[in-house]
Amino acid sequence: MNNFADRLSAAIHDKGSAVCVGIDPRMAQLPAEFQPKRDTPREAAEAVARWAAALIDVVAPLVPVVKPQLAFFEAFGAPGFRAYHDTVIAARERGLLVIADAKRGDIGSTAEAYAEAHFDVIGADAMTVNPYLGRDSLDPYARYLKNGKGLFVLVKTSNPGSSDLQDLWAGDAPMHHHVARMVHSIGRDCVGASKQSAVGAVVGATHPSELVRLRQILPDAPLLVPGYGAQGGTADDCAAAFLPDGTGAIVNSSRGITFAFRSGEHAKRFGDAGWRDSVRAAVVEMRDALEAARKRRSGTT
Amino acid sequence: MNNFADRLSAAIHDKGSAVCVGIDPRMAQLPAEFQPKRDTPREAAEAVARWAAALIDVVAPLVPVVKPQLAFFEAFGAPGFRAYHDTVIAARERGLLVIADAKRGDIGSTAEAYAEAHFDVIGADAMTVNPYLGRDSLDPYARYLKNGKGLFVLVKTSNPGSSDLQDLWAGDAPMHHHVARMVHSIGRDCVGASKQSAVGAVVGATHPSELVRLRQILPDAPLLVPGYGAQGGTADDCAAAFLPDGTGAIVNSSRGITFAFRSGEHAKRFGDAGWRDSVRAAVVEMRDALEAARKRRSGTT
Repeated sequence: MNNFADRLSAAIHDKGSAVCVGIDPRMAQLPAEFQPKRDTPREAAEAVARWAAALIDVVAPLVPVVKPQLAFFEAFGAPGFRAYHDTVIAARERGLLVIADAKRGDIGSTAEAYAEAHFDVIGADAMTVNPYLGRDSLDPYARYLKNGKGLFVLVKTSNPGSSDLQDLWAGDAPMHHHVARMVHSIGRDCVGASKQSAVGAVVGATHPSELVRLRQILPDAPLLVPGYGAQGGTADDCAAAFLPDGTGAIVNSSRGITFAFRSGEHAKRFGDAGWRDSVRAAVVEMRDALEAARKRRSGTT
Repeated sequence: MNNFADRLSAAIHDKGSAVCVGIDPRMAQLPAEFQPKRDTPREAAEAVARWAAALIDVVAPLVPVVKPQLAFFEAFGAPGFRAYHDTVIAARERGLLVIADAKRGDIGSTAEAYAEAHFDVIGADAMTVNPYLGRDSLDPYARYLKNGKGLFVLVKTSNPGSSDLQDLWAGDAPMHHHVARMVHSIGRDCVGASKQSAVGAVVGATHPSELVRLRQILPDAPLLVPGYGAQGGTADDCAAAFLPDGTGAIVNSSRGITFAFRSGEHAKRFGDAGWRDSVRAAVVEMRDALEAARKRRSGTT
C-alpha cells in the first residue's frame, strides 16, 4: 500500500478507532516519573522522549495515529528536535502512523527542504502545512504524495481567531472554501484504492456547520479534526467528518488524553501514578463517543 | 534599547546598509572547503555550521542582519537544528541581528512554545510568522515584543502562487491588505523611539506596486523584502519599502550573495577558493544598488 490515505484508512479499520493522540510535551504536565532531576534542555528533552515512548506504548494498540506537535519539542532546542525524531521512530516501530504537526509553509526549494526534513530524514508519514503562500508552495510535496506520504492542509482551524482571515468572504465563498477547493484540486492526483486522497485537510471540531460543508467540498480528503474536548468540540460535532464506512477522518485530542490524570474525575480515579490507565481510559472513552456519534448521525444504530 | 524596530533601525544606520543576508545551507552549493568527508547528517550539519560561521565573519562588518532559513537546517535533522542554534549564536556574537525565517503559525500555548523556542532558547531577535490562523495566533508573542523581540508577518510573499489566496478580493480590499491592517493594529502597541514598530511585515520585491500600497497601509512597520536578485526583484522595485531616513526596510538576498561564486562573472572573477571575496563583493554591490535606487526615488541625489 503506497498511498497515505489507504494506509490511514486501513489503520482506522484495524484499530477500530479514529482517535489521533496529540503528543504535546509540556514539561510541567508530565507524570512525576518523567520529571528530570536537573532543569537543562538536554535532560528535559530526554525526559520528554522517555515520556513520549511510554505514551506510545500505551496507545499503540488502541489508535491508528499520533500527532507530535513540533513547537513543544523545539522549545527544548536541538535536544528537543532529537526527542522529536526519537518519538517518531518509536511510534513507527510500534506500527503507528505519524502526523508531524509542523504547520510549515514555504516556497519552492524551501518547501522541498521541509519535505526532505520531515519525510525523508525524520520519517513522519504526514505533515500539517499552511496554505497562505498558495498552490506553488504545496507543489514541491507532489513526489512524496506519490510515495506513501500525506499532507493535511490547514483549511478551517479550531481557534476563535480562525474567523479573522479564514472566514473573510471572497467572491462566492469564504476564504477557507477557496483553500478547500485548492486542496481538492491538488488531491485529485493522489487518490488511492480507498477512494481517498493523500492530501487531507485540517478542519476544527469547534465549527460543526463549516465541517458539514467542507466534507461536501472535500469528498475524498481525509480530515484531521482538532479541537475535541479541551477546546470545546464534542463527538457529535465531529460526526459529519466521517465517510459512510467510518474512515476518512481522525479526531485529535492532546492534553485531554495525555494529561487527563491531572484534573477532575481522572485525578481522583487514577492519579499521577496511574497515568497510563488514565490515558487508556480517555482513549477508549473518546473512541466510543466518536463511534456512537457517527452511528447516530448515519442512522445505523 | 529594548524595542526591536529601534535596534534594527540603529543597525541599518550603523552599517550604512539595508542588506539582509539569507543563510540557506544547501549542501551541494557550499564551497569545497566545507564539503564533509562523509555523507552523514552529523558531518553535514557540522559542515553547515562551519560554513555559516565563516559566512557571518565575512558579512558582519557590512550588514545589519542575517536570516537563517530553518527548512535548510531541519533537513539535517537534530544535528541540523544544533547547527541552526550555533549559527544564531555566532551571528549574535558578531553583533548581527538574527531573523529566524521559520514562518511558524499556531494557536495559543503552541504559539507560546514557538516563541519560547526561537526567542528564549535559540536567541533569535525576530521571527517570520504566518498569519492564516488569525490574530489570536499572534497575541502570544506580545510579551516578547515588549522585550526587544520582533515579528515579520507574511503579508504578500514573493512567489507567483502568492496571488492564489493573498490577492483574493474580500470586501474592500485583497486578502493581503486585511492581513496588513491586522499587522498595523497589533503593531501600534509596540512602536519604539524610532517611530517604528516591533511588528513588521514580509512583502516581496517581486510585487513593486503592491509594495508601494503596503508601505502606505503600514507606515510604521519594518518591511522584510525577499525576492531580490535570483527571484527577479530589482533595487528600484524595493525602493518604496524604505522610510525617508533610509531605515524601515531590509532587503534579503540568499543564494544571490552566498552562492554567487558558483556562476557567471563571479565564478570567473573569484571561483570557489575566492568565495569570501565573492560574498563581500555581492553584498557591497547590493548595498550600493539599494542606496542608489532609494535616492533616485526620494529625489535626493
